[in-house]
Amino acid sequence: MNCATPTDITFSFRGFSQRAGVTSDHCDGFGIAFFEDKACRLFVDNQSAVESPIADLIRNYPIKSRNVIAHIRKATQGKINLENSHPFLRELWGRHWIFAHNGDLHDFKPALSGRFEPVGNTDSELAFCYLLDQFVEAFGYTEPSLEEIFALLQQIAPQIAEHGTFNFCLSNGKALFSYATTKLHWLVREYPFRPAHLIDLDVEVDFSQVTTPEDRVAVITTEPLTHNEAWTAYQAGEMILFQHGKPILHALTRVERLIREAENPALKRVTKADQY
Amino acid sequence: MNCATPTDITFSFRGFSQRAGVTSDHCDGFGIAFFEDKACRLFVDNQSAVESPIADLIRNYPIKSRNVIAHIRKATQGKINLENSHPFLRELWGRHWIFAHNGDLHDFKPALSGRFEPVGNTDSELAFCYLLDQFVEAFGYTEPSLEEIFALLQQIAPQIAEHGTFNFCLSNGKALFSYATTKLHWLVREYPFRPAHLIDLDVEVDFSQVTTPEDRVAVITTEPLTHNEAWTAYQAGEMILFQHGKPILHALTRVERLIREAENPALKRVTKADQY
Repeated sequence: MNCATPTDITFSFRGFSQRAGVTSDHCDGFGIAFFEDKACRLFVDNQSAVESPIADLIRNYPIKSRNVIAHIRKATQGKINLENSHPFLRELWGRHWIFAHNGDLHDFKPALSGRFEPVGNTDSELAFCYLLDQFVEAFGYTEPSLEEIFALLQQIAPQIAEHGTFNFCLSNGKALFSYATTKLHWLVREYPFRPAHLIDLDVEVDFSQVTTPEDRVAVITTEPLTHNEAWTAYQAGEMILFQHGKPILHALTRVERLIREAENPALKRVTKADQY
Repeated sequence: MNCATPTDITFSFRGFSQRAGVTSDHCDGFGIAFFEDKACRLFVDNQSAVESPIADLIRNYPIKSRNVIAHIRKATQGKINLENSHPFLRELWGRHWIFAHNGDLHDFKPALSGRFEPVGNTDSELAFCYLLDQFVEAFGYTEPSLEEIFALLQQIAPQIAEHGTFNFCLSNGKALFSYATTKLHWLVREYPFRPAHLIDLDVEVDFSQVTTPEDRVAVITTEPLTHNEAWTAYQAGEMILFQHGKPILHALTRVERLIREAENPALKRVTKADQY
């Protein structure tokens, strides 16, 4: 979620967390990170988002944030333990960075400088450390603009996507970078607001009653969260940068693996996928 | 808290958190970090540990951990906001590191490489970043032994302590490094366990009823938490490394500032102090 004004995620998280055992089987831990200005609070648990007392706190304690990344895990690589729970956190350029990955990478063994090292043993945290390492490689310890980071990500993300499914959300609290090779959807809620009805729970909120005209919220999710709103699917290789609750940059990257697989479906590897 | 076996901190935290408004005035936010093997969960809030719903969760959700660092803040430098809440978290050598500082540093402006940069604007987070930067300076990206880190800390800590009060706890989940220039106490609870009675709340726990002979817990705190246990005060400049619930290394560093002040009390700067 990326917002123009600090917003709580209670409504979306109620529906989303149902997918951790009730409407889907992403039960292998959950995590959620809230940026509050430069600060970042990361909550993770190895219990499912349905059962965890920490998820319960999140559903009932409306933390207001402009950038939130949540993830419910279905383990593909790495054990079901806390150090493998998304999202992952690192500091760079005096800012926290948060990363969540949906997908599965194979034969992905990048050389790392040591500046960022995975704590757990997922392909996802490794990809995150590699991304940040490449940021430092390109820009050193001087913070670049969001546009410069977006341009660099367009080079790196398709390279990582050669190794498998690579849908991700990445935020530094200023903006939210998103990328999809297989599945991601987004929408923007803004004035004039309308009612929204969750898919995973019979709950409706009329946002026109709980918002001001200054509010604007972009929601990015693997599968749409509501019935009656217009979700846009990402194209394969699409990258979008969200700021102030709306997309500010779009790019379509060329993922050679996907092109080869489209030309020859026999090459396609069937993978299970994490969901966030 | 440093423990031989995963232990919950519910008892100590109940007494400790009273100091955030009831028995003392450390109300400007709180934080607590739990290591669970290599994973680390950090909870912070800008509400006091008496009022925060997150502190309430901690008091009621017994997270079992071998290394816990908690802090209740009385702001001396830096605003009362989330990014200035201790403890602070960084990753180095594929491990999370957690740091909490009690004290006040003045004219402390170390040169940083950029490898670790403060997110907030406290002297404490700056000192933490400087410590880790010096670790990389000395050892590169190859993890040294705990003994090597302890030896290096004995050189760096007294230099930082030239700038003011520098009591700290630092952990990487394997062990807990502690240092005091003014005020810190420790004790070890081990077999045969006895009852302990909190100072800040009329609560007693008979640890012999809730432990096994394998348990052993070291508690390090600014001020003793219980009436009826034998707390040991740190000497000025004392550094102790705790592992498996007991001190494994002791050192007494020479802090020139403290020696000058002892010889000439007029030099002494009166400071307010954070407490953890």
